[in-house]
Amino acid sequence: MIRAAGCELCASPGGHVVWSDDRLRVLRVDDAGFPAFYRVVWTDHVGELSDLSDADRAHCLDVVVQVERCLRDHLKPTKINLASLGNVVPHLHWHVVARFDWDSHFPQPIWGVALRQARTEQLDAVRAALPVVDSALQAALPR
Amino acid sequence: MIRAAGCELCASPGGHVVWSDDRLRVLRVDDAGFPAFYRVVWTDHVGELSDLSDADRAHCLDVVVQVERCLRDHLKPTKINLASLGNVVPHLHWHVVARFDWDSHFPQPIWGVALRQARTEQLDAVRAALPVVDSALQAALPR
Repeated sequence: MIRAAGCELCASPGGHVVWSDDRLRVLRVDDAGFPAFYRVVWTDHVGELSDLSDADRAHCLDVVVQVERCLRDHLKPTKINLASLGNVVPHLHWHVVARFDWDSHFPQPIWGVALRQARTEQLDAVRAALPVVDSALQAALPR
Repeated sequence: MIRAAGCELCASPGGHVVWSDDRLRVLRVDDAGFPAFYRVVWTDHVGELSDLSDADRAHCLDVVVQVERCLRDHLKPTKINLASLGNVVPHLHWHVVARFDWDSHFPQPIWGVALRQARTEQLDAVRAALPVVDSALQAALPR
């Protein structure tokens, strides 16, 4: 396993691990404003998507798409946002976030300025559905 | 071709077209603060990555990775940022942005709050290298 000293995604899972294999893990991030926030974290300390072999890249992106599908199927979000940034933690990880037209930043990216405060009931309703998303993910991904 | 009324990416290219085939186009966006900003825009009006067939999705992501490779090879950026958001324009498009540790927002996402003003000479140096990036992309992508 390739690890880098001082990298927080090498040192700890980085969230609640919903599924993993020998190459990557799928995390659910505990974010107050965006409850349906998942991450796909590559196990090895690799900086960019293009550092992966073709097979590894395909696997990584297949899992990203599978997370997207489960979020769409079970939460009916307004939009899915996908991003691989890694400016702060340059260890390959994908953000997969279900966005709703009522969320604090929509239609702005989650990294921008809040436009409103989301209603607690709406956030709670999404949060209550996450175990079903997690189970669907576990069922959809290879054992 | 699937088009949607009122969609700006159905109505116009959305930037300087560097390369295209029958399924997608690669654009260079004219952004003052982030000169090495490319977009991969799917031709059909499709909202999410998971709406594509497996073959189309693989093609789309292969092109995204090829843009990433050309940016890395020719600009040596600090980081590549990839994102498919589409909250404002829900027509599948990927942002591929070369980030530099001196740019206005680094290490924050480009959609956040500026941390500094980038120096004109550094922006100009990146801008001057873009024709080489475009040529490399045209050479790397299938004819």
